Amino acid sequence: MRTVIVNGTVVTASGCFKADVVIEGERIASLADPAMREGSRADRVIDAQGMYVMPGGVDVHTHLDMPLGDIASSDDFLTGTVAAAHGGTTTIIDYAAHAPSEGLRDGLLAWHARARGKAVIDYGFHMSLASVSKAMLDEMAAIVEEGVTSFKLFTAYPGRLYSDDGQILRAMQRARELGALVAVHAENGLAIEVLIEQALARANTEPRYHALTRPEALEAEATCRALSLAEVAGARVYIVHISSRRSLEEVARFRRRGLSVFAETCPHYLCLTAQELERDGFEGAKFVCSPPLRDSASVEALWQGLATGLIDVVATDHCPFHFQSQKRRGLHSFALIPNGLPGIETRLLLLWERGVRSGRIGPSRFVELVATAPAKIFGLYPRKGTLAPGADADIVVWDPNRAQSLAAQALHMRVDYSPYEGLTVHGSPRYVLSRGEVIVEDGSFVGRPGRGHFLRRHPSAGPHV
Amino acid sequence: MRTVIVNGTVVTASGCFKADVVIEGERIASLADPAMREGSRADRVIDAQGMYVMPGGVDVHTHLDMPLGDIASSDDFLTGTVAAAHGGTTTIIDYAAHAPSEGLRDGLLAWHARARGKAVIDYGFHMSLASVSKAMLDEMAAIVEEGVTSFKLFTAYPGRLYSDDGQILRAMQRARELGALVAVHAENGLAIEVLIEQALARANTEPRYHALTRPEALEAEATCRALSLAEVAGARVYIVHISSRRSLEEVARFRRRGLSVFAETCPHYLCLTAQELERDGFEGAKFVCSPPLRDSASVEALWQGLATGLIDVVATDHCPFHFQSQKRRGLHSFALIPNGLPGIETRLLLLWERGVRSGRIGPSRFVELVATAPAKIFGLYPRKGTLAPGADADIVVWDPNRAQSLAAQALHMRVDYSPYEGLTVHGSPRYVLSRGEVIVEDGSFVGRPGRGHFLRRHPSAGPHV
Amino acid sequence: MRTVIVNGTVVTASGCFKADVVIEGERIASLADPAMREGSRADRVIDAQGMYVMPGGVDVHTHLDMPLGDIASSDDFLTGTVAAAHGGTTTIIDYAAHAPSEGLRDGLLAWHARARGKAVIDYGFHMSLASVSKAMLDEMAAIVEEGVTSFKLFTAYPGRLYSDDGQILRAMQRARELGALVAVHAENGLAIEVLIEQALARANTEPRYHALTRPEALEAEATCRALSLAEVAGARVYIVHISSRRSLEEVARFRRRGLSVFAETCPHYLCLTAQELERDGFEGAKFVCSPPLRDSASVEALWQGLATGLIDVVATDHCPFHFQSQKRRGLHSFALIPNGLPGIETRLLLLWERGVRSGRIGPSRFVELVATAPAKIFGLYPRKGTLAPGADADIVVWDPNRAQSLAAQALHMRVDYSPYEGLTVHGSPRYVLSRGEVIVEDGSFVGRPGRGHFLRRHPSAGPHV
Amino acid sequence: MRTVIVNGTVVTASGCFKADVVIEGERIASLADPAMREGSRADRVIDAQGMYVMPGGVDVHTHLDMPLGDIASSDDFLTGTVAAAHGGTTTIIDYAAHAPSEGLRDGLLAWHARARGKAVIDYGFHMSLASVSKAMLDEMAAIVEEGVTSFKLFTAYPGRLYSDDGQILRAMQRARELGALVAVHAENGLAIEVLIEQALARANTEPRYHALTRPEALEAEATCRALSLAEVAGARVYIVHISSRRSLEEVARFRRRGLSVFAETCPHYLCLTAQELERDGFEGAKFVCSPPLRDSASVEALWQGLATGLIDVVATDHCPFHFQSQKRRGLHSFALIPNGLPGIETRLLLLWERGVRSGRIGPSRFVELVATAPAKIFGLYPRKGTLAPGADADIVVWDPNRAQSLAAQALHMRVDYSPYEGLTVHGSPRYVLSRGEVIVEDGSFVGRPGRGHFLRRHPSAGPHV
Repeated sequence: MRTVIVNGTVVTASGCFKADVVIEGERIASLADPAMREGSRADRVIDAQGMYVMPGGVDVHTHLDMPLGDIASSDDFLTGTVAAAHGGTTTIIDYAAHAPSEGLRDGLLAWHARARGKAVIDYGFHMSLASVSKAMLDEMAAIVEEGVTSFKLFTAYPGRLYSDDGQILRAMQRARELGALVAVHAENGLAIEVLIEQALARANTEPRYHALTRPEALEAEATCRALSLAEVAGARVYIVHISSRRSLEEVARFRRRGLSVFAETCPHYLCLTAQELERDGFEGAKFVCSPPLRDSASVEALWQGLATGLIDVVATDHCPFHFQSQKRRGLHSFALIPNGLPGIETRLLLLWERGVRSGRIGPSRFVELVATAPAKIFGLYPRKGTLAPGADADIVVWDPNRAQSLAAQALHMRVDYSPYEGLTVHGSPRYVLSRGEVIVEDGSFVGRPGRGHFLRRHPSAGPHV
Repeated sequence: MRTVIVNGTVVTASGCFKADVVIEGERIASLADPAMREGSRADRVIDAQGMYVMPGGVDVHTHLDMPLGDIASSDDFLTGTVAAAHGGTTTIIDYAAHAPSEGLRDGLLAWHARARGKAVIDYGFHMSLASVSKAMLDEMAAIVEEGVTSFKLFTAYPGRLYSDDGQILRAMQRARELGALVAVHAENGLAIEVLIEQALARANTEPRYHALTRPEALEAEATCRALSLAEVAGARVYIVHISSRRSLEEVARFRRRGLSVFAETCPHYLCLTAQELERDGFEGAKFVCSPPLRDSASVEALWQGLATGLIDVVATDHCPFHFQSQKRRGLHSFALIPNGLPGIETRLLLLWERGVRSGRIGPSRFVELVATAPAKIFGLYPRKGTLAPGADADIVVWDPNRAQSLAAQALHMRVDYSPYEGLTVHGSPRYVLSRGEVIVEDGSFVGRPGRGHFLRRHPSAGPHV
Repeated sequence: MRTVIVNGTVVTASGCFKADVVIEGERIASLADPAMREGSRADRVIDAQGMYVMPGGVDVHTHLDMPLGDIASSDDFLTGTVAAAHGGTTTIIDYAAHAPSEGLRDGLLAWHARARGKAVIDYGFHMSLASVSKAMLDEMAAIVEEGVTSFKLFTAYPGRLYSDDGQILRAMQRARELGALVAVHAENGLAIEVLIEQALARANTEPRYHALTRPEALEAEATCRALSLAEVAGARVYIVHISSRRSLEEVARFRRRGLSVFAETCPHYLCLTAQELERDGFEGAKFVCSPPLRDSASVEALWQGLATGLIDVVATDHCPFHFQSQKRRGLHSFALIPNGLPGIETRLLLLWERGVRSGRIGPSRFVELVATAPAKIFGLYPRKGTLAPGADADIVVWDPNRAQSLAAQALHMRVDYSPYEGLTVHGSPRYVLSRGEVIVEDGSFVGRPGRGHFLRRHPSAGPHV
Repeated sequence: MRTVIVNGTVVTASGCFKADVVIEGERIASLADPAMREGSRADRVIDAQGMYVMPGGVDVHTHLDMPLGDIASSDDFLTGTVAAAHGGTTTIIDYAAHAPSEGLRDGLLAWHARARGKAVIDYGFHMSLASVSKAMLDEMAAIVEEGVTSFKLFTAYPGRLYSDDGQILRAMQRARELGALVAVHAENGLAIEVLIEQALARANTEPRYHALTRPEALEAEATCRALSLAEVAGARVYIVHISSRRSLEEVARFRRRGLSVFAETCPHYLCLTAQELERDGFEGAKFVCSPPLRDSASVEALWQGLATGLIDVVATDHCPFHFQSQKRRGLHSFALIPNGLPGIETRLLLLWERGVRSGRIGPSRFVELVATAPAKIFGLYPRKGTLAPGADADIVVWDPNRAQSLAAQALHMRVDYSPYEGLTVHGSPRYVLSRGEVIVEDGSFVGRPGRGHFLRRHPSAGPHV
């Protein structure tokens, strides 16, 4: 089966050029000068006239079917990956976790079970480490062997996911030995716990107190701490979901010192502010996530960071909860609102609209942020994240003129609201291919459940492979 | 004529992947999966087994056949471009200048005459502006029309090339209107002139006083000034040959503020220090260039800048003068030593050895620094600076194991010494192709004089096209 | 004659304490524990119950009777020093200048003539240097000999006061040799000239264009330049009238590098913003000074600088022009508005109100900023600037509860408007003594013209003597 | 009893001036112009010709008779305060602690018992808080009532003194409510514990591993953390014994943000480097303290911080242990070496020698650092820390020409070695007075045990009272 995408402008992280993309089976066979007329020898020709042909998005921060007490995030690996595909994302890396009573491997097996038979695009796993123990340090090697080459540590959520600084240091040292990468959720959980307790004691229970009890200073502090520990460990480190100007400053400081630090932010931190939490009634709960939304100075700093190279990756932290049946648990206490926003479908849409269309970044930087850099950093490159001969034919044909509403009912995520209700963006996928197969065409999903493969990942090679 | 380069690892600024490169005539026809066996249908097959296949180098800072009083830089457009080709560079942009009595166009015509019939690789011109006048501002539009889309201004060299801050501001405003880019040589020439006069008055005439009279503080100052003026003008700006830690800090500061500033350094600032100027006798004169060589802290900062993205381009500022017949003019006064080092041939060799082999940068960053970014910044992309279908087939087949002596007699630049005498590097071109034609093969030049074309450049599009 | 000030709280730069101040003739005889009952043996007792007893203010930046074309600043040495005394200032240092055709000494003699017989408080001079020549460098030694130990240089006002960077460097080197201090007016005059010309060409003639053509970036740039040149010269440097956040950042940067740099700001930069220039009609002209008023971020940064020690001195740059007869010259062109604000009387009043009463600084820091540090930096300490045995009895008895209107008619400066019309402050002098003599009592001037002495100053000793 | 110190140069934090100091009983009666001839009416006249008359030193960081397991620091309140007096220090604030099983008050009573009948100079206490509990937060108010207005928290020493970030935040909030000041020992104890365990596991037991397991990065991290928590708490904070360049950078960063942070360093960080730990045999143990000695870049940064105002206080962290009988406990494990250096006697001597004599700071800044600022910050001013009428007559008559050996046998601390063996300094006390009584004269202690009073301190007023 030979498919050729003709007449488009190919976008890679290094730039744009006119070329046809030839696909043989699941892989890219060649990028060819249109003058070569490769389209004339194709089983299927896709006309990309006036469109961009880009590598499929790689979303390295998702939480599908994630248990949280007696509930779970509302998208499973079927609904979530279908939504991802609609939005132009063809690879995800989901955060596997383990129960305190289990080993890492038990957690990993549970995640494999969650994904199997459901995922419609390829997927990998990170492994979250809660309260790092000697046994967990020992088990890390086996996990890496299975293609799970990154681990997540938390300075937040004491009593649940939190590791103390000694535990974090040990895990970072171990990761360095294994060539694995440590991702850190950086907020000072112990201090935040005090602020939450005090807010509730003062009957400050509305959603906006979620943001007020997680101040920027405590994200920046924990970022400085994670980077300091990585420096001492001699390890590379990846900071997830940076939301604030000050945290980004920490990244800049340590990078100037020579530390290998990778920085991720998410579309909601680029497009929304803490003002959303002030909405009437309980509406603010729709915007509760951690770290919380920040002020416009942070939004500006994050865009600046995307443009100048300080931020490496835009991922989603997709972790949806229904407003009516799940977010409302926190009606009388913001501390009980499940944390997280839907986003797996809207990442490329928002970054194109607010980034490329507004002139803040160019198309090649767009591709680097949503596909190439995450694939490199998490050991999937060049199989994923770029358009190159031999790579998986995970491709988005992007129509810069195709309007797309971001209202909940126009989207495919399994969640009863949208943080971007009322917003229409310009630029969205006309075709999405996964390993050579068209799975989304003109807004319709045409793939099948379970067609996604688990990706055994290489050790991280950094964004400059 | 169909040439296929097989079995190599293609390197672009976005990464490395195994692919064959198919060339039809002067352009790249396709990048193909080796499984496609494109080599079987070729007129010529080049085996790149074990080698990297990279875009030819783009050297955006050269001074060939440059008049300086009654002498000239020792390489002309023939010897200089042959040397460039030997070193893997397939495009240069040379600085055209004009005499005070002439218009810009006169200067440009003279430069065309210098290059025509000699250049063996493609070339473009920047235009240097000395003491900017109203007439020159008016003439800039016509120059841009002719494909010369960048202008150079000097805060150094009062009485010769210097423009004052008002002149610089006007030229930057004009460049912004024209979509042209301003490059700045940033050293405080007026202050340096005082220091030189005082040094000579104290009979401090040896070459090392060249560096002592051009302190880092005065480069950083002028950099801050150029960036401030660009900010006021709303213009983008390109700082040439950054040599020092402090100048680089200025770039970082203004970039954080949102200014579009591009930064260039040169291999000699990455590989040598001011200690070379202390050599016995008059040997130090071999290392006299402006800005001067700096200390090891600056060297370290520059490498850090390459790794983190603060520096965009490595160019040569190639401006060779014979030691015996030309540098010796300054035997009794460092102020009379012609400024400049040879380097057009050794740029890729040194950056690979000290950058890639030492692990400071990866191959894709190497390509970005020596080819892709300069091509984008100066309006040559995607015709030059990358490997993509439709691009000019300017290609280097780079053998990472091929040793190359940097002794003067092992090199091809027309100059009687080498700053790197005694150094052998590992990694050099096995083949160099210019527009599909092999012009260097295994250390032999096989092209012909005058085959190079003048490149009409587009307006600068920035490094993130 | 023995005067004792009893029951007050003495304030020095090092703190506050209850003490009686004993004055014998013109000097302070002792500071005494109230238990010593020194008041019982006095010719005159001043009761300072509930008040602060502070050293008289030292205003090191005034322009009295300053010629500007065919006009002059509206206060002469009589009206100006009477106003100063009303505001608690008992020493000034005025900027003497010289005509291009004269030597420095001629200028100095002219300034002596202006002050003699008029000044009611003690005074010294700085010497302004315009377009530094060899002759001027030579003459500097004699000027220092006469007790004028500081020189001012301008990066602003090309064609009038401007010196180029080479001239500035030479003057700084010379000042270092002589133990003299160089003060710099730091704005990039050449670039500003371009912006002014362009604004006028676009018929942008209103007062607000004064600020728009002197952007913060060009003050910060010139500050960086002055500090860089001082670093190269090995000289200490004093930056006058810092108005902006970014200029202050430059001071911080160079101080971290070890440069001895002293920083001055003025009350108008602490209390007003560029919004004043937008006032209806021509009212904005009342607020035209250089550098111009800035935005609130700069105001905030300056207060922060006062609190943390980054700024050393608050002086006035008092340079009043009548609104009706002088400022109006610029009715059709902001470039013709004489630059300068009245302020010699209101410095302590404003700094107390906005600084001490608002809790931003304490009384001892207040005294340091308005008296002790300027006296030290300009070689008058300990004769002036502090309360200590042997010092001149220049004393302010400050009533923190005494209200004072800042309307023009409630003040004593010879100028027909006040920038602070409508403002009432709390805290003002009950008594002002100059060399032991009460010259202001309860708002009435009771001294006599010409009683002020010229002060031969020592070389600067820095603020940490 | 009336004592007059004549002919000296009085030094306060605001400057130097010639004055006689008149003492009536325990307090300063007046500072008088020598022309007043106060000496003629004195019971005792001390001739300070050629000498400086300064406030007695205030050492706000001592550990006398401090239990550590089954040993104690080797100086008690008698030997320690006698040594302090010899060195010109007339006030100390010692760190009282409490056993885990006791309340704060029990600890405080024990410390009163330790001091009573022994101290020869006046003294106050801070209260150390280990693992802050609700009960301790409650008890803080009573402690403040008793004149102990500062509390110390530890991010170091897990299992012993460590408090977690939630505990620290609560204590800072409480201190703010009480007007008390929180001092923080900032090193990341949890991470250090891991490094120590790993070093010992590798048989790296020598003293130098003490420094290697407490890297600068972990002090800077904890400093950033303490300052972040203070920012969130809205509290002022005092960082004890800053040893490193990077920690000082944190202080600078947060001060720029407007946080009220006070910074202390110690003479050993200003005069010694980690190289001392490399001494032959076990000699390095003599230099084991926490944080450890650093490199010369940190030494330079600390001096810069003293000169520019970034550091407020020089205190000693005096915590001596005998080399033979106590330090040797760590012969086979650096982790068992009792931490601490002797210093209570040598603080002024070293700071004068290396600071004032070398020209880095002036005498008034010296006085500010060793007496005035600490007295203000810890609520003792103006009773202590300055020379002013009404203040306690705690005075040092300092002879800038008096040589003093710093060999152990020439000093008075009860410890069998000196970190400065072989060093002779120039400048030391000729007379030391405590509350009007000469207690040291020409190197002999002439006071009596137990004459020192406990000082009930006011709330901290900051250094700019």
